[in-house]
Amino acid sequence: MKSVRFDVLTIFPRMIDFYISESIIKRAIERGIIEVGVTNIRDFAVDKHLTVDDYPFGGGPGMVMRIEPLYRALTHVKGRQKKHTILLSPEGSVLTQAKAVELSQIKDGIVLISGRYEGVDERISHSIDEEISIGDFILTGGELPALVIIDAVARLLPGVLGDERSNVEESFTGGLLDYPHFTRPAEFMGMRVPEVLMSGNHKEILKWQRQQSLKRTMLKKPELIDETKLTEDDKEIIEQLKEEV
Amino acid sequence: MKSVRFDVLTIFPRMIDFYISESIIKRAIERGIIEVGVTNIRDFAVDKHLTVDDYPFGGGPGMVMRIEPLYRALTHVKGRQKKHTILLSPEGSVLTQAKAVELSQIKDGIVLISGRYEGVDERISHSIDEEISIGDFILTGGELPALVIIDAVARLLPGVLGDERSNVEESFTGGLLDYPHFTRPAEFMGMRVPEVLMSGNHKEILKWQRQQSLKRTMLKKPELIDETKLTEDDKEIIEQLKEEV
Repeated sequence: MKSVRFDVLTIFPRMIDFYISESIIKRAIERGIIEVGVTNIRDFAVDKHLTVDDYPFGGGPGMVMRIEPLYRALTHVKGRQKKHTILLSPEGSVLTQAKAVELSQIKDGIVLISGRYEGVDERISHSIDEEISIGDFILTGGELPALVIIDAVARLLPGVLGDERSNVEESFTGGLLDYPHFTRPAEFMGMRVPEVLMSGNHKEILKWQRQQSLKRTMLKKPELIDETKLTEDDKEIIEQLKEEV
Repeated sequence: MKSVRFDVLTIFPRMIDFYISESIIKRAIERGIIEVGVTNIRDFAVDKHLTVDDYPFGGGPGMVMRIEPLYRALTHVKGRQKKHTILLSPEGSVLTQAKAVELSQIKDGIVLISGRYEGVDERISHSIDEEISIGDFILTGGELPALVIIDAVARLLPGVLGDERSNVEESFTGGLLDYPHFTRPAEFMGMRVPEVLMSGNHKEILKWQRQQSLKRTMLKKPELIDETKLTEDDKEIIEQLKEEV
């Protein structure tokens, strides 16, 4: 199987290097499931001071990332290949699990441009396929968003997580929030694990887990509950929960 | 001024170390505006194999982060202080710019628990102040979310960005999306910077910027537009834009 290639364009290459040399992403690279290339935009600067940003036309605060070094870096990384190019930007569409799944199916490689989060010369818009934001908050740069995308996408690729992949998956793929988890010891500082989980009664355990998932979802993210997907048992549990509240 | 202290509890301390040794966060630490402590949860394991996770009671896929090492690490980090403790979790409330602003006003320190994203023993809920998610997508761990919070909060602290802080700020604090930015050269591969920005006519520039902000917002995030905050000029621009579409 061909590995999935990510290329990150950044002026802080070490931020990316360091992250990918750790943990699950490191292992995925070692196993040949993914490749991550890091390109320093500054290496493509066109002046002797190697500037990558400049003052905005029309005035205003902040600096703007210049188009030339970025365009040259992008051309270099793409070569003659059709790679899906994403600009990380606060104006982009917000990343969702569905988008991560979509990106995990791209075979030709993904280029992530981690620009200054405060502004990249608008003319780059002609060279990108989409703009993505990781949420409605502001960061100092696009590096963490690029890493978030790599992490969210990589873990979906076959062989990266093995059977570690768990029920939390469902939380964002049309299901409910995850139920609470407990592991040993059975008692900690007076707090006991719910008896049912230690009962060995598989049917009761499943029922408890479903009940807890429904309860959490009702309390924290009621908008996730899709009435049409509820079983009769679910509806009964919800009625009971409503009475308790 | 007292620096703002962040403590991150993780089983991958190097992921945090590396990020904070770069860029704006590094500078903020050097300037004494923030401090970032990194604690390896594994150092607080209670068995000779230094395990930090275990199989879930009741069965099911995945591993669960154990309560004891985590609780001990947390107690160690908090000491006798009242620190605001956040568990990064896909079930948490989604981070917003408003939440980042709120966190930037906390003086007593912030503890960020980067657990396994797939599950931490539920009993930790008694020791935390809130659960935060950075979005509706799944990651391999809570490390990137912790870094996102540090980054989003740190840049709001006085002295971290200086006057680099820019208009993009408004995007998420009740205003509109940012307008497009351009910097030199005035022409690149046949693409010219809009004439108005090079005109020197400040009034016209402001008008163009406002128009562009309104246009982008209408196209990308119409839900941000608050009718009550629109001026008469804004309404006129919107009418024109609607006709164009």
